[in-house]
Amino acid sequence: MSIRVAVNGYGVIGKRVADAVRAMPDMELVGVADVATDWRIRTATGLGIAVYAATDSAGDTMREAGVPVAGTLTDLLGQTDVVVDTTPKKVAAANLPLYEAAGVKVVLQGGESHATTGHSFVAQANYASAVGRDMTRVVSCNTTSIVRVLGALQDGGLLARARGVLIRRATDPGESHRGGIMNTVAPEASIPSHQGPDAKTVLPGLDVVTIAAKASHTQTHNHFWTLQLTRPASREEVLGALRAAPRIAFIRMADGLTALNTTVELMRDLGRPRGDMWEVALWEDVLSVEGDEAYLTYQVYNEAIVVPETIDAIRALSGTVTDGATSIAMTDEVLGMRQEFLPVPLGARER
Amino acid sequence: MSIRVAVNGYGVIGKRVADAVRAMPDMELVGVADVATDWRIRTATGLGIAVYAATDSAGDTMREAGVPVAGTLTDLLGQTDVVVDTTPKKVAAANLPLYEAAGVKVVLQGGESHATTGHSFVAQANYASAVGRDMTRVVSCNTTSIVRVLGALQDGGLLARARGVLIRRATDPGESHRGGIMNTVAPEASIPSHQGPDAKTVLPGLDVVTIAAKASHTQTHNHFWTLQLTRPASREEVLGALRAAPRIAFIRMADGLTALNTTVELMRDLGRPRGDMWEVALWEDVLSVEGDEAYLTYQVYNEAIVVPETIDAIRALSGTVTDGATSIAMTDEVLGMRQEFLPVPLGARER
Amino acid sequence: MSIRVAVNGYGVIGKRVADAVRAMPDMELVGVADVATDWRIRTATGLGIAVYAATDSAGDTMREAGVPVAGTLTDLLGQTDVVVDTTPKKVAAANLPLYEAAGVKVVLQGGESHATTGHSFVAQANYASAVGRDMTRVVSCNTTSIVRVLGALQDGGLLARARGVLIRRATDPGESHRGGIMNTVAPEASIPSHQGPDAKTVLPGLDVVTIAAKASHTQTHNHFWTLQLTRPASREEVLGALRAAPRIAFIRMADGLTALNTTVELMRDLGRPRGDMWEVALWEDVLSVEGDEAYLTYQVYNEAIVVPETIDAIRALSGTVTDGATSIAMTDEVLGMRQEFLPVPLGARER
Amino acid sequence: MSIRVAVNGYGVIGKRVADAVRAMPDMELVGVADVATDWRIRTATGLGIAVYAATDSAGDTMREAGVPVAGTLTDLLGQTDVVVDTTPKKVAAANLPLYEAAGVKVVLQGGESHATTGHSFVAQANYASAVGRDMTRVVSCNTTSIVRVLGALQDGGLLARARGVLIRRATDPGESHRGGIMNTVAPEASIPSHQGPDAKTVLPGLDVVTIAAKASHTQTHNHFWTLQLTRPASREEVLGALRAAPRIAFIRMADGLTALNTTVELMRDLGRPRGDMWEVALWEDVLSVEGDEAYLTYQVYNEAIVVPETIDAIRALSGTVTDGATSIAMTDEVLGMRQEFLPVPLGARER
Repeated sequence: MSIRVAVNGYGVIGKRVADAVRAMPDMELVGVADVATDWRIRTATGLGIAVYAATDSAGDTMREAGVPVAGTLTDLLGQTDVVVDTTPKKVAAANLPLYEAAGVKVVLQGGESHATTGHSFVAQANYASAVGRDMTRVVSCNTTSIVRVLGALQDGGLLARARGVLIRRATDPGESHRGGIMNTVAPEASIPSHQGPDAKTVLPGLDVVTIAAKASHTQTHNHFWTLQLTRPASREEVLGALRAAPRIAFIRMADGLTALNTTVELMRDLGRPRGDMWEVALWEDVLSVEGDEAYLTYQVYNEAIVVPETIDAIRALSGTVTDGATSIAMTDEVLGMRQEFLPVPLGARER
Repeated sequence: MSIRVAVNGYGVIGKRVADAVRAMPDMELVGVADVATDWRIRTATGLGIAVYAATDSAGDTMREAGVPVAGTLTDLLGQTDVVVDTTPKKVAAANLPLYEAAGVKVVLQGGESHATTGHSFVAQANYASAVGRDMTRVVSCNTTSIVRVLGALQDGGLLARARGVLIRRATDPGESHRGGIMNTVAPEASIPSHQGPDAKTVLPGLDVVTIAAKASHTQTHNHFWTLQLTRPASREEVLGALRAAPRIAFIRMADGLTALNTTVELMRDLGRPRGDMWEVALWEDVLSVEGDEAYLTYQVYNEAIVVPETIDAIRALSGTVTDGATSIAMTDEVLGMRQEFLPVPLGARER
Repeated sequence: MSIRVAVNGYGVIGKRVADAVRAMPDMELVGVADVATDWRIRTATGLGIAVYAATDSAGDTMREAGVPVAGTLTDLLGQTDVVVDTTPKKVAAANLPLYEAAGVKVVLQGGESHATTGHSFVAQANYASAVGRDMTRVVSCNTTSIVRVLGALQDGGLLARARGVLIRRATDPGESHRGGIMNTVAPEASIPSHQGPDAKTVLPGLDVVTIAAKASHTQTHNHFWTLQLTRPASREEVLGALRAAPRIAFIRMADGLTALNTTVELMRDLGRPRGDMWEVALWEDVLSVEGDEAYLTYQVYNEAIVVPETIDAIRALSGTVTDGATSIAMTDEVLGMRQEFLPVPLGARER
Repeated sequence: MSIRVAVNGYGVIGKRVADAVRAMPDMELVGVADVATDWRIRTATGLGIAVYAATDSAGDTMREAGVPVAGTLTDLLGQTDVVVDTTPKKVAAANLPLYEAAGVKVVLQGGESHATTGHSFVAQANYASAVGRDMTRVVSCNTTSIVRVLGALQDGGLLARARGVLIRRATDPGESHRGGIMNTVAPEASIPSHQGPDAKTVLPGLDVVTIAAKASHTQTHNHFWTLQLTRPASREEVLGALRAAPRIAFIRMADGLTALNTTVELMRDLGRPRGDMWEVALWEDVLSVEGDEAYLTYQVYNEAIVVPETIDAIRALSGTVTDGATSIAMTDEVLGMRQEFLPVPLGARER
């Protein structure tokens, strides 16, 4: 029997989660809820997705604007096992009583605080502890990537301390009017930025500090790390630890993948839906190790990276799959996730 | 029996033509030729496309770099009925003797001159005159859009004179390093720009002048037109003439589609491959008519708009379909082209 | 005796007007009023400008933040002959009763409506009609440029009809967070845009339609025009009419001035304060004439172009100079405005 | 008697050095040499600067294009004590025999290698060792900023190890067509990048590693550092060491200076020529210290920061001033360099 899933908030993340839920053989998308009347929600209707009104007043507005509304959020929750709340930052917390009343399990996103759910989730790090819980929070795109990469090195016994600079995109490509900055870089006003502490909600033992800034581009983040290792190690040891983890893909400057936009184009070339990259893309031939220090850079496709984590979180809460590795393998197989994007990459051959 | 097609030049246009050829039930992609060794051509291999070396020296370099090379361009042409040359501007002309020697028909792209082939092609305007020819040239993205839109108004007996301003993207999203301009607008050094005269190679009777400039964005062109009509007309008459033509889709500010990037995002939401838009997207609720003048603006997805024209050109040269409307309908059906992107658009309801 | 001037609103325009007033031998800057506490207003203090609080509550906040406040807006107006209101759009109208009560004359900016003052001002077009008035409105940057250029052609008896496309900068370079759009073009939702009708508040006889859009750069606008002339004319006749008008400078692609940013750099090279260009910069070697049609493009330095107009408007209201040409000459001499930026421009030599 | 200075290469750096030389009371600008014919060199003529042809063939082209050419590079060198070579990267090395033959002293720029001159220069670090030498190399903008900031902490006995991420501008604002990247970030292909080792040519004892990337903006670099201190220290100790060094200015988020473009605007507001900032601008209220680690970020105005260093280098080679602190004070006084840009900054008050 399928897990019945609802998505509340059909935005950048919500629409991708809806796509992924529809692709999973063990899940069923009951519907999505939103308050919008514009092209975004109309597209959902065109795809055959049932659209519900997230609030009563929204229902009236949506119907007047010609959006076919299937019912209220309460109606939707009544048919749901797990709801994924992808509403804007801080809205989800207010929805919790409604979810509790309906007796549905809840996956929140990284805009909410850890305290809201008491559990923060990255599949490869702590799937087991979410199994059967009522709620969890999938951490943000930046934090997810940090946990994947630093967690892999920690698991390999190599990581003593991590200091990172996170260059974020200014706004999403379809949202040019919100938060756009032009021809500048805007450093965050405080160091450390919140991502380091946030990663510790999943991996409490990390010694990590992050510095963040926004740059003048609209797609994907770029992280740069200086890592203190537990001991002098070879480059191959470091790469080996990274290769042992799921959801990290390896790219190379030597293949011509020299900037964030080239990988975005590669995803389009690979036929990925929306051009999405769910993996962290780590530049294998940029990574360098000097004694007990390692330096690396990777790309975070912020619109999509939390989608597989969200799918796994649904499964964990539902209790239908109790083993994280099994769930990760199911998700990655269906989405078509990969460790290498190219057959015989040039850079790999040359080293 | 399928039309056997080769694509020479696996770049922005070539890879899309290859995709479309593979999707057409009456065509077969024999292979693609290129000289590259980087991720672009490796992706083709990953998709199961046979890769040939476009030159002898390239063959050696490609093999050394680990690209599996299926043979020479001559080998490829030996199995081909129609070759589509999507090599960089001005390279194609030098390839013509090779194509002639191989006895294959040739579709060139808009970077080449009209004189090279003696025939310039936009399916809805002059399919019939290309049937059975040895060669034709699919005109550029800008010119294709001009012929579609102005041709529709000319067919409707409404167009006397057209004056347009073409705001072009600086470079393609995957090609940030070539031709990028930053934080500026660069007007072309001469008025009229070449697109107006180029449109007359397909529609000789047009009275059209174009002014062009590059702006600081990487995706899609934006055209703005002032049209002198043959007589005072209503807004509905002008829209009617446009709706009677294929490959023009109607979008609306009232639906929240307020800028070039919103339509790009819409294409991703619709599940289009690479997020491509093959239609001209014309803002229905911006179009205005005052007496015998009309003003309109539309968006040209420059990476993709010539793809359906190229498919039709292949069919016309092959002689397998002699009626343009039939070919256009086949192409558009397979690609999933539409006149309206949204079910019950808000703007359409309100007017 | 100097004209005593106050500037209310120390923003993009206000700070430049303050500079220009301080440079004029017949004017005195009494002070500026604002509500800010940040670096912008602190810079004014550093330059020795007296800062007043534009509202009572602002006064408290400013003092608490350590900004030395010289008094209230009423205090400032008590020492003032003419106030220039450069507060954000639509704020100025609410200030009018205060100005009236203080018995000061008022120059508003283009964000306000024509009806607010009953008089709209561009020095070369209608200085005389503003002499001795209580109020006028200096029209916006776009409109000022339109009146300068189309007015020159109208004065030369050459202009029958003008159709323009205005590509605006997204936001100002120091204001990246307000109104920024990224990697897109956003056409205005209606044609005609307001600039055409606005130009008629100064030149009622114009037959002008404008289409506007925002592009993804932060500095200066770029206008493209198709002009119907009253009769077939030579290129030299059209240029002659433009050269006869003040405040239009001629630039050339042949000199390497090929894009908006090159002229901005030129202004820095010329040692202009803030790199400002008060002239309309018209590409002389792009302008072309075909029979009774002319096509041209020019650049509008939106942060600065209304500054000389504002200075002239102050003089006109004050009644100290009754002849427009005299005031224009005084202003342009002090600012260092020019018809040619380069000694012996290459383009000029070659034609 | 003035030091007679020539500038070879009137580009982004050369034109600023020419300005600064003209401003110094102990120097005289004999002339500049270049090969260009466009607006850049014509502007020099307009400013009254004597222009020489950098090569014989350029002389002919320049004269034909109407640029008044005062003579050959040899003619220029014949009247010169010190030549500053600001030609494009790697051209200067080829000019050295010419300079040697003319018996002039030479200041090279950071595009050349340390080996070319055997001495690399940052005034506050090693002025004394350049006094009376025949040649030195002023290091690049990035390296200059690193030496200023890390050198200050080293002088304060606080710096053990420095790891930095350098986010560079894509291209200069007036050079949009060269090296422009759009809507992306391009990490350098190797870690460490060259700036860390380059800083050691001036401060051999530094333990420094740098990671570099280009972002999609055109003005100024942004550096982010994680610093291992020699011992646990207070924030005030770290700031104290930085305040003791020249040419570091302090800015604050609390004053509204929140991004690179705001400081650029501030420079325009301060009336700086070309809007230049010669200081490193360090965010005082972002700097944080945790035990024996410090984190900081600063802005490097790449077009201008090496200008004061170049002036000092001229003086050092000439031997007229033997004490570095004296030369620095002279240069900074004339240019108007400052440690604080605002009177009573808000941020400073609050802490």
